[in-house]
Amino acid sequence: MNAHHQEADLGIPKVTATLADWIVGLQADDIPAEVRREGLRTFVNWVGCAVGGARHETADAALRAFTPFSGQQVSTVLGRPERLDPAHAALMNGITSHVLDYDDTHLRTILHPAGPVASALLALAEMRPVSGADLLTALVAGVETECRIANAIYPDHYDRGWHITGTAGVFGAAAAVGRMIGLDAQRMRWALGLAASQSSGLREMFGTMTKSFHPGIAARNGMMAALMAEAGYDSSERALEAPRGFAHVMSDKQDWAEILDGLGTHWEAATNSYKPFACGIVIHPAIDGCIQLRDELGAEKVGQIAAVRLRAHPLVLELTGRKTPKTELEGKFSVYHCASVALLHGDGAPTAFTDEIVNDAAVVALRGLIEVEANPDCHSASVDIEVTLKDGSTHTKHVERAIGSAEKPLTDAQLDRKFTDQAALVVGPEVTERLRAVAWALESLDDASEVARASVPDSVAG
Amino acid sequence: MNAHHQEADLGIPKVTATLADWIVGLQADDIPAEVRREGLRTFVNWVGCAVGGARHETADAALRAFTPFSGQQVSTVLGRPERLDPAHAALMNGITSHVLDYDDTHLRTILHPAGPVASALLALAEMRPVSGADLLTALVAGVETECRIANAIYPDHYDRGWHITGTAGVFGAAAAVGRMIGLDAQRMRWALGLAASQSSGLREMFGTMTKSFHPGIAARNGMMAALMAEAGYDSSERALEAPRGFAHVMSDKQDWAEILDGLGTHWEAATNSYKPFACGIVIHPAIDGCIQLRDELGAEKVGQIAAVRLRAHPLVLELTGRKTPKTELEGKFSVYHCASVALLHGDGAPTAFTDEIVNDAAVVALRGLIEVEANPDCHSASVDIEVTLKDGSTHTKHVERAIGSAEKPLTDAQLDRKFTDQAALVVGPEVTERLRAVAWALESLDDASEVARASVPDSVAG
Repeated sequence: MNAHHQEADLGIPKVTATLADWIVGLQADDIPAEVRREGLRTFVNWVGCAVGGARHETADAALRAFTPFSGQQVSTVLGRPERLDPAHAALMNGITSHVLDYDDTHLRTILHPAGPVASALLALAEMRPVSGADLLTALVAGVETECRIANAIYPDHYDRGWHITGTAGVFGAAAAVGRMIGLDAQRMRWALGLAASQSSGLREMFGTMTKSFHPGIAARNGMMAALMAEAGYDSSERALEAPRGFAHVMSDKQDWAEILDGLGTHWEAATNSYKPFACGIVIHPAIDGCIQLRDELGAEKVGQIAAVRLRAHPLVLELTGRKTPKTELEGKFSVYHCASVALLHGDGAPTAFTDEIVNDAAVVALRGLIEVEANPDCHSASVDIEVTLKDGSTHTKHVERAIGSAEKPLTDAQLDRKFTDQAALVVGPEVTERLRAVAWALESLDDASEVARASVPDSVAG
Repeated sequence: MNAHHQEADLGIPKVTATLADWIVGLQADDIPAEVRREGLRTFVNWVGCAVGGARHETADAALRAFTPFSGQQVSTVLGRPERLDPAHAALMNGITSHVLDYDDTHLRTILHPAGPVASALLALAEMRPVSGADLLTALVAGVETECRIANAIYPDHYDRGWHITGTAGVFGAAAAVGRMIGLDAQRMRWALGLAASQSSGLREMFGTMTKSFHPGIAARNGMMAALMAEAGYDSSERALEAPRGFAHVMSDKQDWAEILDGLGTHWEAATNSYKPFACGIVIHPAIDGCIQLRDELGAEKVGQIAAVRLRAHPLVLELTGRKTPKTELEGKFSVYHCASVALLHGDGAPTAFTDEIVNDAAVVALRGLIEVEANPDCHSASVDIEVTLKDGSTHTKHVERAIGSAEKPLTDAQLDRKFTDQAALVVGPEVTERLRAVAWALESLDDASEVARASVPDSVAG
């Protein structure tokens, strides 16, 4: 349809069509057991994060704005009594699952895959029933799609200032929902086109509520892209690769092989990772090391600290060099705060980032004793820590690879503890236990939306 | 809040804050009468276009997708019996007002200003009552905002492949709605930030339904940006100018003076223009000239044409060089079709672009006799036409500046005819007359939403 389609595009493969064909054709049996298992871990981690963030002031502000515009209130805002239409519920769950900076990470691109994809799928499942196994297949299709598209444009795209969780995430949501509702190949191409024209999200928003808005709109917009395509709303059929399409307009790098090679044999979805701590991954080695030192020293000696010296990858100071944080969000961008609270309380969970703890006198005092040295030779998953006590003794800790890194992934048991620690604060221990069990049982559920309903406190769910 | 805010940004003025202050402070009396008058013409033209496009298959497909998700059905889809919540109505009216390629044009940037702005304002006015005069003030604020932002990044931004009506339009909608609901200066900055993170729309979509989706989502997303800011959802306060903000990420050109200089004294909103023909402006000189030739020759001699030769600006062939269009949308991208139907029927209205007329045997036959020569010396609003009849006689027409160009704007009477010609086809002559009168009377209305209700056929409005 487009005049530019008449241009010679020799050398550009049919990226959108090939990807769409793969998404449409993907069956549960095509996915190796270990990839499905990682998809399930992705889902469980996402449920815990969405419930963990459900009572955040960001969620309250969003609900105030969206509620007057909600349609049929059939879909659950995870962990809350409110229900919204599936599009708004997807938006809300995308926000809450990301707001604590505690969600999953595709380490190659710093994309957070579950927010856009799972938020769209589970919200729509409450309007259009689907089995847990089918939802998981759609989730793997969506995560694979967004991670491959992200690989094709990273790092140029991210360096330019795009929040890749929003910009690539919308394709993941469109692919996942399109797969779940059974789009044919042409409509899947349209869904990807409608997603491309809604791809957005700027890194300038980091440190504000608008950061977590990005996975929310990616979820909603990708869902609506698939539903519009289903309704016959057409679009470009080569939105990814066209000269004025997504990859050329939003990046100087376009590596089509990252999207096309090994589809169905190599799985990016299997490389997803889960944060042990509720902040950006660059600080994780410092927190991991400080918690280990605290365990070795004992709480009493922590009170005797005279100085702390960290040697870390230069990105740590570049991204999280804030010396005097005052708020929860600022605390997440302060390696000084993170190290202090890890040494004092052994904590890196959301409880380590409340406004109260960020302004706690003891945490602030210890923070002032911490120095951080940027060392370009230091791996980004590594750190060296030296603590000097008032008696002049020194104690050191070398972390070669932090917990949660690609080399040291969270175990199922650690995922369970993370889930419980954050969800219990919001919905209490009983609902948390029930929800965690239902989430892990996803593949056996005839109706996937059971998971959503299990997240609501009993007194309200009735 | 953002770590990058600590970077030295010497030399970058406070663009977002200054613009937000101006929007918040703008009063009706600050707007010169002729600027308000152009705002009113912008509004009237938009109402006619939205009604004219209301029954397009694009609107039907969108409604099929959106209706199950609509909230309180308080807002009118112009020209149709359906009602939706204000966000979805804004989306629909943004689509329908653009779908015939017949809406207004900010000639410096090819931005179509009314779709994002007026669609958001009138839809929300049905939930939050506002006078017509206040709506017009907000409309002028929104149009001024989006056109100035577009000027700051055009042409680089557009050349890169962005559909500027979507990408800059969302700021117009946020500014207009923010002004209408009375945001304070800080919340207006947040609204612009929330708009920046939703700025999207690719030129690759031209020729598909997704093109008109862009002003629709700009309207909805800008409206929700303002409403989220009102609800306390915060954002960057320098979304336009920050190193990883809108203008740097989405353009290589950033001319802040285009946004900041002459705010309140020079009015881009006064430079808006209105298309006499329902297709891209590059073909307008050809259509204008062919209609004039037809009037001079008479219908009978048109049947004797042996050859037609056009000399036009090179963009005409680059953008609309399609030789054998088969559909309405393809017809709009064919200078051959446009010249043929203008010579045969004297028509450039939506009736000149139906699937039937594009495939009409006589139109197709004459199309085959037309040659177009690209002439770099030809002004883009100009054309030379030479018609040779079967008797060997030649007839020429030189158009120095086409009707609808900056130098030859549509008169109010021509706007009225355009309004009537397109709206009467959809809602009939009586509703059209009533609606046209109410639209022109906007500034005297206590309740601006009267205009929306006046667009609905009587039998349904009851």
